[in-house]
This record gives sequence, structure tokens and C-alpha cells, in this order.
Amino acid sequence: MLLTDTVLRTIRRYRLLPRGGRVLCALSGGADSVALLHILLALQERGELVLAGAAHFNHGLRGADADADEQFCRELSAAFALRFEAGRGNVAERARAEKRSIEDMARTARYEFLTDAAACLSADVIAVAHTRDDQAETFLLRLIRGAGTRGLGAIRPRAGRVIRPLIDLRRETLRSYARRRGLAHREDATNADVGIPRNRVRHELLPYLEREFSSGIVEVLAREAASAQEDEDRLTAEAIELVASVVLTSTPVTIDAEALGRLHPALAARVAREALRRAAGGRFVGFDHIRRFLEFVREARDGSALSLPGQQAVREGSRVVFRPEPPRPRRGVSKELGSVGP
Amino acid sequence: MLLTDTVLRTIRRYRLLPRGGRVLCALSGGADSVALLHILLALQERGELVLAGAAHFNHGLRGADADADEQFCRELSAAFALRFEAGRGNVAERARAEKRSIEDMARTARYEFLTDAAACLSADVIAVAHTRDDQAETFLLRLIRGAGTRGLGAIRPRAGRVIRPLIDLRRETLRSYARRRGLAHREDATNADVGIPRNRVRHELLPYLEREFSSGIVEVLAREAASAQEDEDRLTAEAIELVASVVLTSTPVTIDAEALGRLHPALAARVAREALRRAAGGRFVGFDHIRRFLEFVREARDGSALSLPGQQAVREGSRVVFRPEPPRPRRGVSKELGSVGP
Repeated sequence: MLLTDTVLRTIRRYRLLPRGGRVLCALSGGADSVALLHILLALQERGELVLAGAAHFNHGLRGADADADEQFCRELSAAFALRFEAGRGNVAERARAEKRSIEDMARTARYEFLTDAAACLSADVIAVAHTRDDQAETFLLRLIRGAGTRGLGAIRPRAGRVIRPLIDLRRETLRSYARRRGLAHREDATNADVGIPRNRVRHELLPYLEREFSSGIVEVLAREAASAQEDEDRLTAEAIELVASVVLTSTPVTIDAEALGRLHPALAARVAREALRRAAGGRFVGFDHIRRFLEFVREARDGSALSLPGQQAVREGSRVVFRPEPPRPRRGVSKELGSVGP
Repeated sequence: MLLTDTVLRTIRRYRLLPRGGRVLCALSGGADSVALLHILLALQERGELVLAGAAHFNHGLRGADADADEQFCRELSAAFALRFEAGRGNVAERARAEKRSIEDMARTARYEFLTDAAACLSADVIAVAHTRDDQAETFLLRLIRGAGTRGLGAIRPRAGRVIRPLIDLRRETLRSYARRRGLAHREDATNADVGIPRNRVRHELLPYLEREFSSGIVEVLAREAASAQEDEDRLTAEAIELVASVVLTSTPVTIDAEALGRLHPALAARVAREALRRAAGGRFVGFDHIRRFLEFVREARDGSALSLPGQQAVREGSRVVFRPEPPRPRRGVSKELGSVGP
């Protein structure tokens, strides 16, 4: 099967785009995103979609190299007479200010920019170049970090306006497509830096698992990521329906401790996550917060309090009420609690 | 906290045993099970339980070494005036006959024997020596093999009559308890054989993850195994309630294809697993069978058939009916589909 046909099948299978829809191509300049651009061009040729343009985000993290990447993307877009949007952000500074990891902040800033660029270019969706290998890597990273409550889910083929038409392709298939066509692209030197956990997963852990345990490990992990995502979706939907019976009031967030205690643990964890998020005002709520909160709900005596992101939970009779935290030196969220995203 | 107190807390936390209950200690002769025996003796001393005896299963796989293990266990039990049951099985032969992996067959034969021994010694429960490290190893093995539908669940603290009072302990804690007390034990040479996947996980993969990614990896994986188990329990319970609305008749097993197709994918997979198991007559039903079956239910035309373990599924109008497989050379179940257990 032609690579473009495989991609088209992915687009149809996950309903990523109606026929003739307008697509913005996220372009880093790396091999995967350059290949994505060419695949989208081929699909445009066949009348399957309209390529609304390309967009490149300069994270401001790699100086002259990053500027050259931007220039490369600009010229590549011009070569195909595509509209081009470039964005810039000082990710390092913002990460410090918001106390988030660089990777996490870079992802947020990038997707914010892409959303704006899509609006600018009247694109219906934003195509990004994640492959099945990215799926497996993200799954392993999340597994190792223990991030999120049930953080083992997959990179979704579609998340809001972001679509991933290459998610059923192996990276090697994509790269050999690029090689056969002699597509020029930029090398991001940091991709080889095994000081970065994702690169260690890519260049060391996955090849080791492939060699020593299972030649099909990427397929296996991608499949497990998809299963985990389905389970997560189902249980979260169920939990959200239950929130109303457990969260008694919203300001302040007040919880019926007994009702929460009666829930199946799989649902209690998700209802608690939802309640904590509502009370956390945008702060990160991790697995460990939820675990400590559920212990508190089970065991705390009247009047006792538990410190949580941006708030404290106070036991008041059969209820737990979220109150502003009293002023005192705050403990930072430990590094393991950071989120891992594509 | 004393190690015996930690174990007692585990026993209470998971309600493994009522106070004064009769426990059979599964004794391989290795360091972990010898330590378990001593912990159970200490708890008997404190009046928490009654040690009904010890039982050792000789898998017949390691010749004279295995005989010496059995003798060691017999003498150790005698030294504490404990009743002792020994069992033997030709696991290799039975594995060949039943076309199962040696590890899988050894586990089945061992638990069969232990169940009989417990009845013999009027024990309420059978204590086995799995630690949190075994939990993490099993989780990783299942993950890598992609076995089972949603095969990421945990080793349960309790499964039927089998209890795991050491499941909250790290192996190193247990071993240092054994060393401090100078407890004699047997070394199983095959534990060092990294040709066996479980040993590769234990001696290579986990130490690598611990060193390169997260010093708390065992805790993280054990926690994720427990979460996955809770999710699995909840979704399976929900699916089992739905089976009646999808499985129309039992002989032959007949499925309402539309009703199955309407279910959330997380539930459809589990309802399908249940239906396939009912029709499979004890044969192993793996992830891949379920995936192919669901595809068949979605897409098959009237009259077409799909070969499954011990049966074939035939599309008949809006129904799928399980029929005996027509006589022909049967394909074996691929090796990846084997189950991984503690």
C-alpha cells in the first residue's frame, strides 16, 4: 500500500478530517514533519484536503540553530507557495516563572501558537507528525514517571483541533519515504542528547526491548496505549457523571466524604481528580495528590487538614471542604509529577 | 517498623486472613519463601495466625537439584515441627501435551498442588512469598508481551485461597531480614539464567530503569499495576453484567452483533473476551483473538467465518454463532499470546 493511502486510511478511520477540509501543517523542519508536509501535499493533489499553510514555532531554546530551522521552514513553504506562520516564545523564562519543566512548557507554548496560526490561516485542523514510535515512547515515558492518575493513555489520533495522520506509521517507514524522495530536512542536535529522558527511551530503552524481549515491542506498546486510552475514556466519563453526587457545592468545593468512600476505587480516584482540579485553579494535580487526598478522606479526623496544590482540604464532619491555604512556605511539586505529552 | 508489623499491616489492609486463621506456607526453599516461613512463625508466636504447615512442589525440571530443594524444605519444616506436604509433577511433559509454556504449566501445576495440600492440612489460605519487586517484574513482563486483553493488572494480594502477605515489601528488605537472622536457604541456579525473560527483567531491565530513569521505578510500577487492576476489576464487572444482553444463547454461543457493536470499546473488548472464553472450552483466549473477533463482528458479511481457539465464529444475519471448527490442520497459538503470572 502506498504511504499516502495508509495515511488516508488513518484519516478516515479516526475521522480526522472531512474530505476537502483545511489543514495546517505543523513544521519543525525535522525529517518527520517535512515528510508530513509532502504527504499532505500529495493528498491535496488528490483532492482529499486543502493545505491551508505551514506553521513553525521557535522555542527560543537553541539560538542560531533554531533561527536556521525557522528559515528552512519558511523557504520550504515558499517553494510550495504555501502560506507560512512563524511564532517565537521564550520557553525557558516562562518555564521558570510558571515552575514547569522546559519540555512541558515548550509543548504548551507550541500548541498555543499553532492554535492561533490555525485561526489566522482559517485551518480546520492542525496536523502534527507523531508516529507509532512516538506513541510507544510516550507510553513508556509515562509509565516510568508514574505521571498522572491513570496516565498510561495514548497520544490520541485527534485531540481538539490537533490531528495525527501519521500515528499508524512506523518512524522508519516515514524516514525511508523521505530518503527515497531525497527530501531535505534539518537535524535537531538535541534529539541525540540522551541526557533527555525521551531520547534515552528512543535511542536506548526501546532498541534494548526490541533486541532482548520482543521485536514487535513498538506495536505492542502502541496497542496497549490505545487500550489504556479506551479504558481511561470510559472510566472518566463514568466518573464525571458521578461528580455531581459527590461534590456538594462549588464555592468552596465541598465533598461528601462518605459518598466518595462508597465508590469503586477506580471511580473514586477519578472523581477525586476532577474535584481536585476544580479546586486547584489550573495548578497541576498529580497521582500522588490524589492518593494522599483519598487517604485523607478515608482516615482524617474532624478539623484536620491536608495541603494540596493551591488549597487545603479540611475535614468538617462528614464533609471535606477546600479552603485557601494558610500563608506558609510552600513545598514545590516534585519533579516526578510533571506531565509527559507528545 | 518491624518487618513482621509491616506484614501484619498488609494482612489487615487487604483482609488476607482473620485473626487466628490457618495458613499453609508455600515453600520453594529459596530465600524469599524461607523468610516468609520465619515471618509466619513469628506471627504465630504473637497469636496472629496458626501455621498449618508447609508445602513444597517439585516441578521435576531440575533433577538432583530439585530433589535437594525438596529435602531441604522437609528438614526445615521438621526443625519447626511443622507438618509438611511435598508434591511432584512432570511439568515439561504436561506442557508439551497441553501446548503451553513451561512457566505457565509449572504455575498451574504448583497452584493445583498447593490447593490440595491446603485441603489436606485444613488450611484456610496459602501464603506465597511474592514481593513488590515481583509485582513490578510481572507488570513489566505483561507489558512487554502484550499478553491478555487488558493484561496489565497486578498480582493480587489475595486471589482465591492464595494470599501474598509480602506484597508491600521490597525484596531487598526481605533478603536483609534473612541475612541478619542467618537463615539458610537454597539457591535456584535458573534464577540467574537471563535466557529466561523474567530473569532478564529482574537482573537487567529493572536495574537499568532504576539507574537511568527513576530510582523509585519498582514503587512506580507496583502502583501502576494496582491502578490497572482496579480499572480492570471495575470494567470487567461492568462487562459481565452486559454479557446477558449480547450473548443470546449458550449452546451454541450466539452473539447479537449489533448489541456488541454499540458498546463502548473498553466494554466491547471485555464482553467479547467473556463470550470467547465461554465458547473456547478452556483454551487460552488472548488479546489478538479478541481484536480479530471484534473486527470480524464489525465487518464480516453474512456466511463468512473466523477461526478462533477451539471453534469458529460464523456470521449469520445480525448474529455471530460459534460453531465447531471444521477438521483441518490447526494453527498453533503464537508464543506471544502466553499468559504471564506470578
